Amino acid sequence: MQYQSILSEIGAQIGELPTVGRVAAYIPELAKVDTRKFGVHITTIEDVHAGYGDATEKFSIQSIAKVLALVLAYRMKEESLWERVGVEPSGTPFNSLIQLEHDKGIPRNPLINAGAIVVCDVLISLLANPKADFLAFLREVSDNPETTYSSRIANSEKATGFQNAALVNLMKALGNIENEVDTVLDFYFHLCSVEMTCRELSRTFLFLANEGVDPCSNLKIISSSQSKRINAIMQLCGFYDEAGEFSFNVGLPGKSGVGGGIVAVLPGEYSIAVWSPPLNEKGNSYKGMKFLEMFTTETAHSIF
Amino acid sequence: MQYQSILSEIGAQIGELPTVGRVAAYIPELAKVDTRKFGVHITTIEDVHAGYGDATEKFSIQSIAKVLALVLAYRMKEESLWERVGVEPSGTPFNSLIQLEHDKGIPRNPLINAGAIVVCDVLISLLANPKADFLAFLREVSDNPETTYSSRIANSEKATGFQNAALVNLMKALGNIENEVDTVLDFYFHLCSVEMTCRELSRTFLFLANEGVDPCSNLKIISSSQSKRINAIMQLCGFYDEAGEFSFNVGLPGKSGVGGGIVAVLPGEYSIAVWSPPLNEKGNSYKGMKFLEMFTTETAHSIF
Amino acid sequence: MQYQSILSEIGAQIGELPTVGRVAAYIPELAKVDTRKFGVHITTIEDVHAGYGDATEKFSIQSIAKVLALVLAYRMKEESLWERVGVEPSGTPFNSLIQLEHDKGIPRNPLINAGAIVVCDVLISLLANPKADFLAFLREVSDNPETTYSSRIANSEKATGFQNAALVNLMKALGNIENEVDTVLDFYFHLCSVEMTCRELSRTFLFLANEGVDPCSNLKIISSSQSKRINAIMQLCGFYDEAGEFSFNVGLPGKSGVGGGIVAVLPGEYSIAVWSPPLNEKGNSYKGMKFLEMFTTETAHSIF
Amino acid sequence: MQYQSILSEIGAQIGELPTVGRVAAYIPELAKVDTRKFGVHITTIEDVHAGYGDATEKFSIQSIAKVLALVLAYRMKEESLWERVGVEPSGTPFNSLIQLEHDKGIPRNPLINAGAIVVCDVLISLLANPKADFLAFLREVSDNPETTYSSRIANSEKATGFQNAALVNLMKALGNIENEVDTVLDFYFHLCSVEMTCRELSRTFLFLANEGVDPCSNLKIISSSQSKRINAIMQLCGFYDEAGEFSFNVGLPGKSGVGGGIVAVLPGEYSIAVWSPPLNEKGNSYKGMKFLEMFTTETAHSIF
Repeated sequence: MQYQSILSEIGAQIGELPTVGRVAAYIPELAKVDTRKFGVHITTIEDVHAGYGDATEKFSIQSIAKVLALVLAYRMKEESLWERVGVEPSGTPFNSLIQLEHDKGIPRNPLINAGAIVVCDVLISLLANPKADFLAFLREVSDNPETTYSSRIANSEKATGFQNAALVNLMKALGNIENEVDTVLDFYFHLCSVEMTCRELSRTFLFLANEGVDPCSNLKIISSSQSKRINAIMQLCGFYDEAGEFSFNVGLPGKSGVGGGIVAVLPGEYSIAVWSPPLNEKGNSYKGMKFLEMFTTETAHSIF
Repeated sequence: MQYQSILSEIGAQIGELPTVGRVAAYIPELAKVDTRKFGVHITTIEDVHAGYGDATEKFSIQSIAKVLALVLAYRMKEESLWERVGVEPSGTPFNSLIQLEHDKGIPRNPLINAGAIVVCDVLISLLANPKADFLAFLREVSDNPETTYSSRIANSEKATGFQNAALVNLMKALGNIENEVDTVLDFYFHLCSVEMTCRELSRTFLFLANEGVDPCSNLKIISSSQSKRINAIMQLCGFYDEAGEFSFNVGLPGKSGVGGGIVAVLPGEYSIAVWSPPLNEKGNSYKGMKFLEMFTTETAHSIF
Repeated sequence: MQYQSILSEIGAQIGELPTVGRVAAYIPELAKVDTRKFGVHITTIEDVHAGYGDATEKFSIQSIAKVLALVLAYRMKEESLWERVGVEPSGTPFNSLIQLEHDKGIPRNPLINAGAIVVCDVLISLLANPKADFLAFLREVSDNPETTYSSRIANSEKATGFQNAALVNLMKALGNIENEVDTVLDFYFHLCSVEMTCRELSRTFLFLANEGVDPCSNLKIISSSQSKRINAIMQLCGFYDEAGEFSFNVGLPGKSGVGGGIVAVLPGEYSIAVWSPPLNEKGNSYKGMKFLEMFTTETAHSIF
Repeated sequence: MQYQSILSEIGAQIGELPTVGRVAAYIPELAKVDTRKFGVHITTIEDVHAGYGDATEKFSIQSIAKVLALVLAYRMKEESLWERVGVEPSGTPFNSLIQLEHDKGIPRNPLINAGAIVVCDVLISLLANPKADFLAFLREVSDNPETTYSSRIANSEKATGFQNAALVNLMKALGNIENEVDTVLDFYFHLCSVEMTCRELSRTFLFLANEGVDPCSNLKIISSSQSKRINAIMQLCGFYDEAGEFSFNVGLPGKSGVGGGIVAVLPGEYSIAVWSPPLNEKGNSYKGMKFLEMFTTETAHSIF
């Protein structure tokens, strides 16, 4: 496929669209970002690359990092992980707290906030130096020794993260958090503060398009079966209350973040990352969703 | 692939498992079925067939028929259908009624009861003779002029279907039902009463594995884009509150029914139907789920 | 007390207030009523009367009749009634359906719609000719042989009562309705269609201010203990989601209806009925609530 | 009335009942209390006293102290208090968190945990030395300069109070908490740790039976109107999800605590406090509820 020309063509069309939606405002640091930024980068499992726009500028990947925490926890803890968190889509957001109460503190899946917090708690129990060890893992999968947390973003989240503090306290009350509330929140806020470029992000997720093996380094990150299951979870749970819409219009497993980034994979083919800060009302990048919809329509290739 | 040997091998293993779960009891007619029945049939888009067990015995396909009603409504009404029903997974079952109230009578997706009832209402408004016209469509896609409703099952459901009567009245109150409550319920109960064999069922769903075109008759049932979107909806919404579990363990778009049937498709490859009446606690066929999990593990091929 | 002068004084002040709120519009017949109507009537247990405004004009008492159905059912069925319906306030309206599902079809109390429907079902099982027998009871307690249903209102409700049809079907599905759905709804819609004047209404409820005995006829309607318990239920459940507000501002047990009527009693003293059709956003008469608040402030006498 | 003989007679009957229910176990310190303790004390507005059993032994009054915090906040802040907290009963407990989210962090009433936490936040903003100033107020209303917090109980609650930490963080996220989360929780846990005897408790609440004026000291604690409104709130919200049951069976405004205490007032007559640690499944003292039901039946006097 001529990915470069397709990216450039659709990128240009997206560039002409008016700016719709709003930048995430609840985290002060995120509210400062330039709303006109737009970048996209694709990496195939044969290491073919194509990029467009601001594809080499770092942005806050936010919730996309939850997938990477999940990958590490799944690798270390295997099937027993699923006693602490489910694999079902979460349904309407207004029932997230009542769901937790109803299900004894077991979150619906590891990609909603409550579930990612449990994954953090699992990693803290497993790792000797949780923040440092997770960073080492990030650098391994991103093949970039400079990948790091943004303490500026982490502190900004900590100062306003009362909703997440409510979640972790509720789960602690219900018996599904092992470590200290503050330790768990600190790790979680650092996890969400990771910064990458579109190019780095598509490179990082390539192993999920290749049955768990990084095709460049030949490192096996997770097993083939685990890789497929991570993809299944992204497919059903990767886009807040818009997972169905994304499956319906794009048809790829993926994950979005409130920083405006989205990463998606076509198993056996490629990993693609797109970034545009303004979010639609469901909290996903407006132009990012649009781009991927046009991209899979143009390439006529999805998992369905 | 040697589908016949794989089917026989896994079928034999499943046959040795103890009977777990219970037959649907709320519909008197369904409660009478023999719990030991087990059948499976695969049809590839090259018209290769393989079957095992009670694959040519008719059973009540129940909610699986909701996919076929959706296909017809989508074909006739196109994108405006989605103003009446969503495409998102439904989350925990305990909030289905509150969700309807919250969303002004718009069900989360067309495969939960409320959504299928709206699809029935749409079809009643579109078709001259709803029940006869839908039957004609069923016979077309199943390539079987004898496919029909079971009035015995339909009447059994009508006599006990107060939960569905509650749903349709609530949506009528909220403005999302156009026709008479009794007319809608009658059509819905007939829809759910259709009977097929595993062989017929896998044959019927083959067009969804072939971009909307029946590969045997070459009839275009729906467009390629619509076909992919139906698959996306099945992937996210086809298994009540176990869609994530099915994606995670099986990795195929599919739909189950309380009669114990499950149909699933691998786009570009095949359609497979399995039947075993006892249901797990989420309402899906216990052995049917198990069979498909073992089948995609053995064939090492899923959409992910 | 000089009730006549207090009524006239406050009535005049209320008359000068602007018209706030809206007449109930979901029942076509109720939407036709003159929004400027205002009447009030007090009857003491010594048979002292005072009235003001449109106190002798009939209006649709609507949900106020639920108290009278409850009185009859309680008298006939005694404590076993409470196996079918609770005595707790209902909380926020958005959880009425989920509450029913959670509590196996047992409504929170007999004054919300679901609870009154269960009371109707109880009466249908107990009475030989439910509608006629209940009317005879109404005529007894109102001491008026001409008290009757409005078939015009009953039919108007029936044509639009899908929400109530949803409730009765849901409770039937959950096992808390004994009779046919249509029979129960027909009785319920007739119950809600009763018409009275303020004078008749205050006269009718006088037995609840007098320990269950009608002080004019000396007829014992219910026991002293039952009378106090009906008052307790009105206090906690008589004003939809505004029972607290009414207790806080007025401090009397009472019941409102969407026709704009409110009746309240001060045990040992009086029964008072007020009518003004425009409703506040919680569904209670705006000027009726205001009047009673000013009345108990002026008389400096409430149950607290 | 011969209160002493009535108390002794009913107290003796209660003493013969088997121990039903369980002591609150979630706070370690409360779990240690002797389940056989039983005490009751009545104080009339004419300063007549009668007691029975362990009426002069201190126990943890727990949530009963919420009423006293409310009284102080209402006195200082007057009507603007009601912009921060409602006056409606809370309905089923399973929706407390969803209610907060739905209502922008405004709790349903000041006697549920969330509401009492908001009252604490209000007091912290109003008082120079919140804990010391509130203690001074407690000593004033209890007419006992030795009334104090139990730091043992407060610390025990703090170590396990994750549910309350979840509530305060959620309300902080929704904008209804002004002060630091930890400051609010510390004050709240101290509030709940107050210890009194039945005699002290009935003495303390006497002003609510006397239109806001302490009849012994002649001190006006709050206005007559405010006193009636506090009683109205206790009537509707004082017994968790059993307010209706208490109104129905006892018919007095009151408040219970998980320490097994209950206080109730009959306006114009008396204040009564009862203590028995084992709780029924709704969290109210089993024998305390029973005693008060028998007491108002025997005295044939309630607010209804």
